[in-house]
This record gives sequence, structure tokens and C-alpha cells, in this order.
Amino acid sequence: MKLPETSEWVLHSVAVIAQLPAGSTVSGAQLAEHFGVPGPYLSKQLAKLVRAGILTGSTGPRGGFRLAREPEQLSILELIGAVDGAADPYVCRELRQQGRGAARPEDCTRPCALAAVMRRAHDAWRESLSGVTVAQIVAGLPAEVLEKNRRLLLQSAR
Amino acid sequence: MKLPETSEWVLHSVAVIAQLPAGSTVSGAQLAEHFGVPGPYLSKQLAKLVRAGILTGSTGPRGGFRLAREPEQLSILELIGAVDGAADPYVCRELRQQGRGAARPEDCTRPCALAAVMRRAHDAWRESLSGVTVAQIVAGLPAEVLEKNRRLLLQSAR
Repeated sequence: MKLPETSEWVLHSVAVIAQLPAGSTVSGAQLAEHFGVPGPYLSKQLAKLVRAGILTGSTGPRGGFRLAREPEQLSILELIGAVDGAADPYVCRELRQQGRGAARPEDCTRPCALAAVMRRAHDAWRESLSGVTVAQIVAGLPAEVLEKNRRLLLQSAR
Repeated sequence: MKLPETSEWVLHSVAVIAQLPAGSTVSGAQLAEHFGVPGPYLSKQLAKLVRAGILTGSTGPRGGFRLAREPEQLSILELIGAVDGAADPYVCRELRQQGRGAARPEDCTRPCALAAVMRRAHDAWRESLSGVTVAQIVAGLPAEVLEKNRRLLLQSAR
């Protein structure tokens, strides 16, 4: 069970944009340099965040990104969902209705008990992530980190 | 984020063995036929359950499997863990310490706040799965299902 490596990029990109004064934009190139990651690959992730309504902006050479909503309105679950990471990792293929031991359809009117257990665990995971906002993450960062990130990203702005 | 397809096989295999009278054994071939899945591939999963101390038995042509512990002592988390499905899906590569924006080591004495959020969600997932035992799954099955599974698997026993 693995989330894409780019999950970390996405979480940090949104968190760092949320540290800038409201309305500030940063380019994909700035973010790539800030994190030391490949620009074209990061741009693809940023485009997913735009499609998911988390960022606004464009991916062109003069493009810039900003938050599409207040950081208080952005949960970590939404960010993970934007990179296709929030789907239930367990897939029930109704094994109980296959093979020699196949249960009769009339004994399968309720969801498979094992699938239900897996689903409840996934719901607990989602609930945990949906309870944390980007604003809460930023609020917990050391003042030195905030100051440095603002200085670096606003200085290098076009 | 995906669990292996064989997670479903493993959960159902252990659940069906737990439905048999204590001490009964079933072969990998019986289970493969019961579920209509490829025998050699299922055998690999059963071997993992043996290595994890969930089943005892052997994988040979005359091999048989039984529970290594009481079903009250077997959590769903352990079964998923046996097929390498219980590791944290989020990997923190300390992105905050990379690139032009790298935070100073002295500002990173606490775990990354984003990694901590992901870890808490995974802990919630684990806690949910560890709270359900194989015995509870079996106790919730319709009597007709239990009776049928016992009849099929004990009849065909060597």
C-alpha cells in the first residue's frame, strides 16, 4: 500500500503557498527550485491541484499559482485526493460469490463483512485527514521557517 | 493507494478456516477450488500467513492448514500485515530539508507536521483494523453460509 511519492510534493507545495501573503502567486519553477524537485514533474502535480479546485493559476512559463480557497477551507484529505491517493485501497471482488463455495445471492444481500471492516478503516483514515486544514499546518510552523519561505519565494517572484 | 488483490483471498481464506471445527485442516487446493482462484498463487499467500504465525501447515501436496491461534486472537490488521499491506502508505523524504528552501536542521527537530498528520491517519486505520477479530467476522455470518462452507470443506478433506 503506497501513496505516490508526489504526495509529499503536493502537500508541501500547498503548505508553502499558504504561507505567503493572501493573493501572492508563485510559479512552478520557483516551487521546483524551492524543493529541489524536477520542474516538469512537479508541474503535472500542480495541474492536478488546479483541476481539483485547490489552486488557481496556469502552468505556462509566466504562470503563477495561488490558493483557490482560504487555507482554513482546505483539508489534507482534499490534497491527497487531488493526486488520486484517497480511494479505498481495498477492492472487494465478491470472492464470497465465486468458486465452488460461492454463497447464494440471497445470502449476500448485506455487504461482505470483511469488505465492511476494510471500508470502516478507510473511513477512519479519511476522517483523520479531513479534520486537518492547511491553515492548521501553517499555524504550527516555526516563525523562522515562515519568514524564510516568504523571503525566498517573494524575493524571487517575477 | 492500493492493497494487493490477494488481500481479499487472505482475509477470506482465514475466515473460512476459522469456520471449521477447531483443529480441522484444509489444503491449499481445497481453498483454491472453494474460491475459484489459481492454486499456486493462493499457496504463496498461505505461505505468508504461515510465516506470520497466523496459520500452521505445509504447502506440499498433502499439506493442510489450520489456525495457529484462536480466532479471537487474530485481528484483521494482522492478516493484512501478513501480505505486506499494513505499512504506512505515506513516505516522508524530508522534503522540507531539500532544495533552495531547505529548512535548517535546528528548525527540524520535531517531525514534519505534514508527515505527522499522515501518520496519525494511518494509525487510525490500523487501530480500526486491529479492533476486529476473525472470530467477530465468523460470528456475524448467516448460519446457512457457515453450514455450507463446513459441509463443502470437510466433505472434500483428505
